[in-house]
Amino acid sequence: TPKHKIAVLPGDGIGPEVTEQAIKVMDAVGERFDTVFEYCHADVGAIAIDRHGDPLPEETVEACLNADAVFFGAIGHPKYDNDPSAKVRPEQGLLRLRKALGLYANIRPVKTYDKVLHLSPLREDRVKGTDLVIFRELTSGIYFGEKGTAADGQSAFDTCSYQVEEIGRITHLAFQQAMLRRKKVTLVDKANVLETSRLWRKAVKEIAPQYPEVALDFMFVDNAAMQLIQYPTQFDVILTNNMFGDILSDEASVLTGSMGLLPSASVGLHTSMYEPIHGSYPQAAGQDIANPMAAILSAAMLVESLGLHEAANAIRVSVQYVLEKGIGTPELKPGMVYGCSQLGDLIAHLV
Amino acid sequence: TPKHKIAVLPGDGIGPEVTEQAIKVMDAVGERFDTVFEYCHADVGAIAIDRHGDPLPEETVEACLNADAVFFGAIGHPKYDNDPSAKVRPEQGLLRLRKALGLYANIRPVKTYDKVLHLSPLREDRVKGTDLVIFRELTSGIYFGEKGTAADGQSAFDTCSYQVEEIGRITHLAFQQAMLRRKKVTLVDKANVLETSRLWRKAVKEIAPQYPEVALDFMFVDNAAMQLIQYPTQFDVILTNNMFGDILSDEASVLTGSMGLLPSASVGLHTSMYEPIHGSYPQAAGQDIANPMAAILSAAMLVESLGLHEAANAIRVSVQYVLEKGIGTPELKPGMVYGCSQLGDLIAHLV
Ligand SMILES: CC(C)[C@H](C(=O)O)[C@@H](O)C(=O)O
Ligand SMILES: CC(C)[C@H](C(=O)O)[C@@H](O)C(=O)O
Repeated sequence: TPKHKIAVLPGDGIGPEVTEQAIKVMDAVGERFDTVFEYCHADVGAIAIDRHGDPLPEETVEACLNADAVFFGAIGHPKYDNDPSAKVRPEQGLLRLRKALGLYANIRPVKTYDKVLHLSPLREDRVKGTDLVIFRELTSGIYFGEKGTAADGQSAFDTCSYQVEEIGRITHLAFQQAMLRRKKVTLVDKANVLETSRLWRKAVKEIAPQYPEVALDFMFVDNAAMQLIQYPTQFDVILTNNMFGDILSDEASVLTGSMGLLPSASVGLHTSMYEPIHGSYPQAAGQDIANPMAAILSAAMLVESLGLHEAANAIRVSVQYVLEKGIGTPELKPGMVYGCSQLGDLIAHLV
Repeated sequence: TPKHKIAVLPGDGIGPEVTEQAIKVMDAVGERFDTVFEYCHADVGAIAIDRHGDPLPEETVEACLNADAVFFGAIGHPKYDNDPSAKVRPEQGLLRLRKALGLYANIRPVKTYDKVLHLSPLREDRVKGTDLVIFRELTSGIYFGEKGTAADGQSAFDTCSYQVEEIGRITHLAFQQAMLRRKKVTLVDKANVLETSRLWRKAVKEIAPQYPEVALDFMFVDNAAMQLIQYPTQFDVILTNNMFGDILSDEASVLTGSMGLLPSASVGLHTSMYEPIHGSYPQAAGQDIANPMAAILSAAMLVESLGLHEAANAIRVSVQYVLEKGIGTPELKPGMVYGCSQLGDLIAHLV
């Protein structure tokens, strides 16, 4: 029986609850497809500050580096919310983790589920059929460039910098994904203003001919922010830098009304990490009302990455089935309301 | 009779047509309220490249600096679209103009008009009642910071920098506007990552007590991109930097279905500029189908800035009246279809 080592970082708020359901489901597919997942739990975020005085303790990084894949719940706690300049903050844990694991590509599929389309803020005819995936560069750009404040406190700066090599590796992933999809890549940038965007265009154009079947187009970020709302179905693969990806992937996540259903993967040099895109929702924590489906679908991406395609498929099909039956957690306003843990049990049973 | 000198920069595509209507309407209110507008036409954009080899000829800058206000149509032409690294491009004219006139605050009101709400990509219950205004810093940040590409072409950088003084002047404008509205300012930033955002927070917090009636809150830009779609009515005044403002103001512009109705002002150190937010739409140019209402409402902002409040109001009331009557250009799918010039005549007649 093949064994896979998974580092599990439940984090804060509803993170632990939804992570527990994802593990239930992984165990269930493990049993069905004769694979063993070995978990190593580690702290990250506010809970890690509370326990170790550090949002990313050294043991956590080590646990991740020793694992075949990392499962991440959610981080963030209101007590750290109102002071982004505080010395120690949960998000620092996340940023350092991305860097430590070399998580250079954040991948966020956004697709519609007919059963929850009525929850979309968009008119159904606009959003129906949306099925896109955002490739956001995650370890460079303005997030990690040189920054500082002048000694007199009168000015500050941040630097966005990119290397061709950093652009290249995520570009290849994006085109490879496009080959498995509708074969279209849209590079989103601000090449009419930014030097780094012009470098992205050049680098991406140089790689594109290696994927002759994939159509490449370009869109300015301000236009993309409009197009996502007006004609979201036009997109297949969106490729963009760290900062634009942060904004556009959050924008895209609310289009379909299925925020609680959206998984993500962060592909790394050393290992890869899988997490629901929703936050830690401290208000909902401990009430067994959180939607575990995004976490469970993230587990599907995780097992897929280990080559377990049938297992991944079984998870996706079960989630789809549950939705079609009108079953869901309260925020989906479903026909049949299930708790977080009950829904985890059901999906684990179905896979 | 008081005289006001207006520099008129019609630009490209539908720019000249909609500008012509705005001028008709200004002349009409001028007559009614006993004021004279003197116009000085100048070239900018693709047309200026064609005529002078420069998207912003020196005479144009001078015409603007000599004027009490500047009216701007739209710029951009497809022949320059696909090469953002070309030596001479229309947008450079715009960026240089902003710098030359010191246009530090771009002000974009976004409001719903019940008659066009059915054109919104959002569900009516989400968007109805939206009435917000974005204050975007326009002459600093990553647009104008140091930038470059390494000699070997393997890397590039852009610098975002801000000074407290640059933040202060737009912040005062935003708070002053909030005092005339619902008394709420939302600073949108990425203070959990960017040093410049932390400077913004600090500077804005220091100014806020001068406006004790105004409530100030903070929102990360990724969250703002979501909130604009989910609950656009929550916003009153949004204050943000150049890059985030570029993205969010375009995003906001498509929410209400009334893109062709949205005006803007760019307040400057030396003079101020008024323009419709829509682009140059070369496909529609010369067909007399462009919607002049955004240009006409920009003229209302212009005359307002000259202290002509009654005239400004007369323009707004007339546009509102025309809309209520179900009159509009083709893209509004109105009850009665008018051409661009016919609609200009009608509104000029009504003011
Ligand atoms: C918490 C924050 C630093 C982070 C980011 O901006 O990357 C978050 O918004 C995300 O998108 O994962
Ligand atoms: C044309 C471009 C440089 C410009 C900008 O990014 O400022 C435009 O998008 C705008 O918002 O006026």
